[in-house]
Amino acid sequence: MTTFVFGHKSPDTDSTGSAIIWSWYLNQIKGVDAAPKLLGEPNTEAAFMLQHWGLDKPEIIADVADDQPVVIVDTNNPAELPANINGADIQAIIDHHKLVGGLETKGPINIRIEPVACTATIMWKMIGADLAQAPREIKGAMLTCILSDTLEFRSPTTTQEDKAVAYSLAEDLGVDIAAYAADMFAAKSDVSAFSDAELLRMDSKEYAVDGTKFRVSVLETTAPGVVLDRKASLMETMTSVAKEDGVDQVLLFVVDILKEEATLLVPNDLVRSLASKSFDATAEGDTVVLPGVMSRKKQIIPNLAI
Amino acid sequence: MTTFVFGHKSPDTDSTGSAIIWSWYLNQIKGVDAAPKLLGEPNTEAAFMLQHWGLDKPEIIADVADDQPVVIVDTNNPAELPANINGADIQAIIDHHKLVGGLETKGPINIRIEPVACTATIMWKMIGADLAQAPREIKGAMLTCILSDTLEFRSPTTTQEDKAVAYSLAEDLGVDIAAYAADMFAAKSDVSAFSDAELLRMDSKEYAVDGTKFRVSVLETTAPGVVLDRKASLMETMTSVAKEDGVDQVLLFVVDILKEEATLLVPNDLVRSLASKSFDATAEGDTVVLPGVMSRKKQIIPNLAI
Repeated sequence: MTTFVFGHKSPDTDSTGSAIIWSWYLNQIKGVDAAPKLLGEPNTEAAFMLQHWGLDKPEIIADVADDQPVVIVDTNNPAELPANINGADIQAIIDHHKLVGGLETKGPINIRIEPVACTATIMWKMIGADLAQAPREIKGAMLTCILSDTLEFRSPTTTQEDKAVAYSLAEDLGVDIAAYAADMFAAKSDVSAFSDAELLRMDSKEYAVDGTKFRVSVLETTAPGVVLDRKASLMETMTSVAKEDGVDQVLLFVVDILKEEATLLVPNDLVRSLASKSFDATAEGDTVVLPGVMSRKKQIIPNLAI
Repeated sequence: MTTFVFGHKSPDTDSTGSAIIWSWYLNQIKGVDAAPKLLGEPNTEAAFMLQHWGLDKPEIIADVADDQPVVIVDTNNPAELPANINGADIQAIIDHHKLVGGLETKGPINIRIEPVACTATIMWKMIGADLAQAPREIKGAMLTCILSDTLEFRSPTTTQEDKAVAYSLAEDLGVDIAAYAADMFAAKSDVSAFSDAELLRMDSKEYAVDGTKFRVSVLETTAPGVVLDRKASLMETMTSVAKEDGVDQVLLFVVDILKEEATLLVPNDLVRSLASKSFDATAEGDTVVLPGVMSRKKQIIPNLAI
């Protein structure tokens, strides 16, 4: 039976690319029949990666059957995985997020979680010398994942390991990191095709503070004006999205990759208070700028308070 | 603050030895102030290892304080860890058991779980070339852990990796594996000092089948007669131990390491039926022999049915 390799719902570049990288490794190096899958449409940056490196878009699946062999990459959170994930035969987990609890395996399996910025960085270490056998597009996917998750090394999640792997891949591939990252971020910033609800859900994780449930959305962009021009309708849409998704409030952080700051939309007093208590920031109008804030994992989630 | 490194409650050789090995690595190689701890008295084989290699017995702790930095080895099961484990600052997990769920970390950390027989085998790979700097007693602890968890390579959990590491360590140390393992198993088999209740709890894990809770105890020994001579009082004690521990039934499997079989005590019809449904074994009297059964993880737990 083919092993399915997939990352989280609302797939970003790392969840898409890591699934492709690990499927290549399983197929070509380990002799395991494996295929990458997606749990939804990839974001525009992930789509750019597929197109740029000539990679096929993985099939999108809605759920997994009982006993389906799977490898989970870039998450260990059941809420971000198919509903039947604990019915599947989980073969391995490769991730770089905090352990959430909730996944169970039928026997001992390979689990590798490390506090680096990107799943592909961990895979680079696990694949080791066998990477020499990888085609350009696999190495290209790896480089794209690292530049994406580190925001070209600007994110505070970036480690020396991520940088070392990225520079080594770029050298090998003959890729100019600055020029390539600019193309990636331009693709990520092109959100004109998405509805307000899609934007609010695109890169978001649910998180509870003292019993209040938030959908914490982050939009990383080099053109924040494009998103902020839509702030009125985005804030209006937050109410219906929160209701549909069973949370109390949607938070939208528009991260300006180049200026290295986030703008938080402030639709009401709950978010106004949150901005003050979490980031010591006073929101006068319906937005507030948070200088230096780029990482949900390192800077937003750990500080959230109401 | 000193990082505490510990394995599971009722510490066996791997839980004791791996904590010592990893503390050495953190202190001497990584420059992290770390100390091994125990969550109870080590078993007789673990005590033999400490004495044989001249290792200090780690301090026994009852619980961990909030934000205490800890590294968890040889388990990922909160039920086998201090009550406040999720209040601690979990820095890393190194284990070879199935993922149970329930542990949560405050941020992304190092987690390495692999389906090998022994935690020390994973550590050998993680330590890599730095092992050359390890003193004899650290390498000796590693070898002891592997011989213990594999029952000198007899257990079906044994992998080629476990064997390769053990032979390499034995060669390096000039240890005759057969003679040394015989000494280890003799130490493990010397259970005369333990009360019936202590024997029933010594190497046991809780496991539920269709809502019925079992304490699944395994006694690995080269002298099964010593234990089986006590079967009447052991079976009597099962009732009070089950009551105190909040389970429905204690199961005791006496594993004969040399004959490679287990004897299950059969105190009542529940266990008689379990023997039949789990192992296709008919218990005529108050014991039943299960040929080839040596591993709780691979052979007992996956087959339990009532």
